[in-house]
Amino acid sequence: MRSGLFWTVLGGSMMLLGCSSSESANVQTREVQVAKPARVLRHVVLFKFKDDASSEQIQQVVDAFRALPSKIDFIQDFEWGTNVSPEPHSQGLTHAFLLTFKNEADRDAYLPHPAHQEFGRMLGPILDKVTVVDYWATE
Amino acid sequence: MRSGLFWTVLGGSMMLLGCSSSESANVQTREVQVAKPARVLRHVVLFKFKDDASSEQIQQVVDAFRALPSKIDFIQDFEWGTNVSPEPHSQGLTHAFLLTFKNEADRDAYLPHPAHQEFGRMLGPILDKVTVVDYWATE
Repeated sequence: MRSGLFWTVLGGSMMLLGCSSSESANVQTREVQVAKPARVLRHVVLFKFKDDASSEQIQQVVDAFRALPSKIDFIQDFEWGTNVSPEPHSQGLTHAFLLTFKNEADRDAYLPHPAHQEFGRMLGPILDKVTVVDYWATE
Repeated sequence: MRSGLFWTVLGGSMMLLGCSSSESANVQTREVQVAKPARVLRHVVLFKFKDDASSEQIQQVVDAFRALPSKIDFIQDFEWGTNVSPEPHSQGLTHAFLLTFKNEADRDAYLPHPAHQEFGRMLGPILDKVTVVDYWATE
């Protein structure tokens, strides 16, 4: 009987360890929520490339754009993709990039940033049209 | 001594209850991660309204667009905002909407959805230009 109680108490200690681990899980949940604040500044960039732009040139531009977050640490989030809309409203724009900034000061620092300027010089020769809209994301 | 062990065992049981709660916390963490899967389908919609559209008409359109997620439950995420870009590349577009779908089937079901069609009929008379690009979000 004593032996039986001993194992039960040991079990209780193991549960205590389990609970410490679970408190870490609670903290992680809060961190995820903080990672998506109520309002962020979105920077939408849409490209149409010149007809004579080669697929290699376009890929180089995409790769260079995708490399910017590693060079400009205040780009909070970056995603991109090519147009798959079935609607006739793309205006010929084929490539979409969505950058997220914490605020306008960071966006303002991004625009003249040397890495962004260098990207612009690579892009220029093959770019036909660009559309840029920034907005404070509101639900 | 027996009494002391009894309380210790009870303590273990309480820890067990605590751990049940903490397992819920673990599940919540996974749910948050699932809420931002590796790839989602973005639907970017940019509007330029006619010069003679009143601010009340524009607000009605914005409110009607914002109401769509409550009517079409497969809109996974919705955000919008007005253009604040300092760059000369907005093409006159002033309002941005970003809808997120799980996949192309949901996007394809959204386009002809009665609630979306009704919204389109309200929008039409005051819309000057629209740009729509959909893309699979890739990092």
